[in-house]
Amino acid sequence: MGNAIVGQSGGPTSVINSSLAGVYESAIERGAGKVYGMLNGIQGFLEKRVIDLSLYLKNSLDIESLKRTPSSFLGSCRYKLPDPEDPESKDTYEFIFQYLKELDIEYFFYIGGNDSMDSIAKLSNYGKKVNSHIRFIGVPKTIDNDLVKTDHTPGYGSAAKYIAVTMKEIIRDATVYGTNYVTIVEIMGRNAGWLTAAAALAEGPDCEGVDMICLPEIPFTCEGFIEKVKKLQSQKKSIVIAVSEGVKLPDGRYVCELNDDGHEEDAFGHKALTGTARYLANLVRKNLPTKTRSIELSILQRCAGHMTSRTDITEAYQVGGAAVKAAFEGMTGKFVSIKRISDAPYQSTTELVDINEVANLEKKIPLDWITPDHMRMEKAFLEYATPLIQAELTPIFVAGRPWHIKL
Amino acid sequence: MGNAIVGQSGGPTSVINSSLAGVYESAIERGAGKVYGMLNGIQGFLEKRVIDLSLYLKNSLDIESLKRTPSSFLGSCRYKLPDPEDPESKDTYEFIFQYLKELDIEYFFYIGGNDSMDSIAKLSNYGKKVNSHIRFIGVPKTIDNDLVKTDHTPGYGSAAKYIAVTMKEIIRDATVYGTNYVTIVEIMGRNAGWLTAAAALAEGPDCEGVDMICLPEIPFTCEGFIEKVKKLQSQKKSIVIAVSEGVKLPDGRYVCELNDDGHEEDAFGHKALTGTARYLANLVRKNLPTKTRSIELSILQRCAGHMTSRTDITEAYQVGGAAVKAAFEGMTGKFVSIKRISDAPYQSTTELVDINEVANLEKKIPLDWITPDHMRMEKAFLEYATPLIQAELTPIFVAGRPWHIKL
Repeated sequence: MGNAIVGQSGGPTSVINSSLAGVYESAIERGAGKVYGMLNGIQGFLEKRVIDLSLYLKNSLDIESLKRTPSSFLGSCRYKLPDPEDPESKDTYEFIFQYLKELDIEYFFYIGGNDSMDSIAKLSNYGKKVNSHIRFIGVPKTIDNDLVKTDHTPGYGSAAKYIAVTMKEIIRDATVYGTNYVTIVEIMGRNAGWLTAAAALAEGPDCEGVDMICLPEIPFTCEGFIEKVKKLQSQKKSIVIAVSEGVKLPDGRYVCELNDDGHEEDAFGHKALTGTARYLANLVRKNLPTKTRSIELSILQRCAGHMTSRTDITEAYQVGGAAVKAAFEGMTGKFVSIKRISDAPYQSTTELVDINEVANLEKKIPLDWITPDHMRMEKAFLEYATPLIQAELTPIFVAGRPWHIKL
Repeated sequence: MGNAIVGQSGGPTSVINSSLAGVYESAIERGAGKVYGMLNGIQGFLEKRVIDLSLYLKNSLDIESLKRTPSSFLGSCRYKLPDPEDPESKDTYEFIFQYLKELDIEYFFYIGGNDSMDSIAKLSNYGKKVNSHIRFIGVPKTIDNDLVKTDHTPGYGSAAKYIAVTMKEIIRDATVYGTNYVTIVEIMGRNAGWLTAAAALAEGPDCEGVDMICLPEIPFTCEGFIEKVKKLQSQKKSIVIAVSEGVKLPDGRYVCELNDDGHEEDAFGHKALTGTARYLANLVRKNLPTKTRSIELSILQRCAGHMTSRTDITEAYQVGGAAVKAAFEGMTGKFVSIKRISDAPYQSTTELVDINEVANLEKKIPLDWITPDHMRMEKAFLEYATPLIQAELTPIFVAGRPWHIKL
C-alpha cells in the first residue's frame, strides 16, 4: 500500500494538531506505508521540505501531547496555488505530481480553512485531468467558523469556549470598583461574527453577561454606538462590550482604519484588523463622562491550548480520521464536513462534500440570530453554540506548565 | 466573642477570594460572632455598605466556588485614608471607630497591596492612640509581587503561571509560518519587573522560550532595543519579546508616553500604562524589514481564574487564616508575610511583620537576577519563581464554563 502525506495551512488553532493526530493514527491503522508531513504546507512541499512523521510521533504519549499542543505542529503557510487552467502553472503542477510520485503518495490530506480548501480543489481537479490515482481530501479547520456546508468547523468550539471563559473573568474584574467604566473587548473573525457572538456564552446564572455585542454582519456607526453606550450606562455603571475586529462603517471602511497610527500586518502582509476596541474606547472617553479600557484577545483566542473544548478537540480528531477513511475507500476531491444529528444530547457525525462547493466561500451569522436592536444574540445562536464548548481536555502539566510537542 | 470584618482593596487578582475564604472560615472556626464584609473596601465602609457574609457563603460549595472565583467578591476601591495626625481627619476616624463599635467588631482584616497596608497602618496606629481593643491585620495580595518583607505575595504565582503558559502558546503560534516576525508582548507590573520576568518560565525542553525580556528595573533606549532585535533576527526569524508596561527612558518618561494618541485611564483616573508594545512594534516595523505584532496581556493576567497556581491559591487561603489566628491571639498592626523554608521541596510558612515596615514600600527585582546583557533572567530568578507556579486547581466547570460566585 502507498504512502500518505498531510499538511497544515492557514491560521493556527488550538486543535488543528488533533486533526493531524487523527490523520496520522488512522492512516497508520489502515496500513499506509509511510505518513509524511509537509512543513509549512504546500509552500514547503514545493521546496521538498517533507518529514517522515513516524520519526517524531514515536509513541502514544507523543500523540496525546500532539492533540493538546496548540498551533500547527508542521508549520503553516498562506500560499495560494496557481490556477491549473493557466498554462503558466504547468511547471508547478508537474513538479507537485512528480514529487508525489517520488514519495509514492496515494493519499493527500490538507488541514485548513477556505483558502486551503481551494488548494485541495485545484489539486484534485488537476489530478482528475491527468488521471492520477492520488486521492485529495480536505480537513476543515478555522476558529472563524466561516466554512459553508458544515455545521461548524473544528477550532471554533475551543476559541468560543476561551472567549466565553475570558469574558466571564473580564466581567468579574471590570465590575469590581463600582465606578463608571466601559470595557471594550476586541475579538477575531474578520467578516464573520461567529467568534464575537460567542461572548454571549458568558451569560448565565452566575454572570450578568456582556452588555452589547457588535458583529460585522451589522453595519456600524460611531454615533449609534455612543448612543447605545450612553443608554446602557444610565442603567448600569460598568459596561462590557464585545466588538468584532471586522466591524465596518456604512461606507465599507473597517472601524479600525479610523486609527491614524500605522497598521500592523500579519505574517503575510495582510493588514491586521487590530485597534477597533482602542479606537472605540478613545471615542467613548471623548464623548461620555466615563473611564474606559480596551482589550484585544489577539492570538490568545486561537492558541490557548490550555482551555480547549473536549467536544471540539474530539471532533477535530474525528474529521482527520474520516478524511483518511474516505481516501482509503477511494474518494478524492472531497471535504469532511460535520453534521449535527441532535442538540440534546449533542451528537454529530461526519459526511463528505464536494470540495468545489466549499472552497473560497464564507458563511456568516444568520441575521435572525441577532436581536432586532443588534446588541445581543437570539436563543437560536445560544442553542447552536453551547454544545460546542462542552467538556474539557486537561493539558498534560509538567512542572506547572502544559507540555507541548514540537519539531 | 465579638465580630470580625474583612475588606478587599486595590487591583483584583485571581486568588484574592481565596484569602477571603481563609479569613471567613478561620474566623467562624475560632468562634467569631458574625463575619462582616465591607463592600468596596474602606470606601464602602465609610458609607456603611457592609454585609453579613454568612448570608452569601452558605455551605462548603460556596466556599469552594469563592476560592476559584477571580476578582474581588466584595468589590474593591483605591481609597487612601487621611493621615490620622491631621486634625481634619478627626471626623473620619471617629466615624470609623464609632461604626466598628456599632457592629461590635473586634477583628478587622484588610486584603490588599502596599496602598491597602497603609490603611491598616493608619487604623492600627489610631486604634492604639485611642486605646481601642480592635485588632487590625493586613493580608497581602498583589500580582505585582512588589511588597517588601515577604518572600512573595499571593496573586503573583497565579499571574506568573498564566504568563508562562500564555507565552508558551504565543511562541508556538508565532513561529508557525517561518517568516520574519517580531511579536512583542506587554505585561503588567508598573515599576517592578516580577511579572514580566515570569515570561522566562516559558522556556523548557519543549519550548525555546522568549528571546528578550525588558524590565522596568533597567533603563530603556529605543536605539538599543532596535539593535538587539536586529541582532536576534539575524539568527532566528521569529522573535518573541516580553516587555514590561513600566519600561522607562533614561529621562524618566514611560515608553508608552511616546504614543501620541489619547491615554486610557484606569477606574481611578491613573494614567494606564498601556501601549508600550504597540509603540515598540511600530518602531520595529519602521526600522527593520519584518512584520510585527503587539499583544497586551491586559487584565487577563490578573483575572484568569481558569489558570491558577494551586501553590498560590493555597497560600492565599493560608495567609487569610494566619491573619485570623494573629488577631484572635491578640496581635494588631501586623501584616502576614510568607516565609520560604525550602526550595526543593518547596515549603513555606507565614510570619507576622509590623505593618509600618511594609506600607507604601516597593520591592524590585535584584539587579543580579538579570543577565549582564539585560535580556534574560538568571538562574536565581528561575529558582525563586518556579515553585510558585506549581500545581493546578481545576475550576468547577458547569456547562463548559468555570462557575463563579457573585453578590
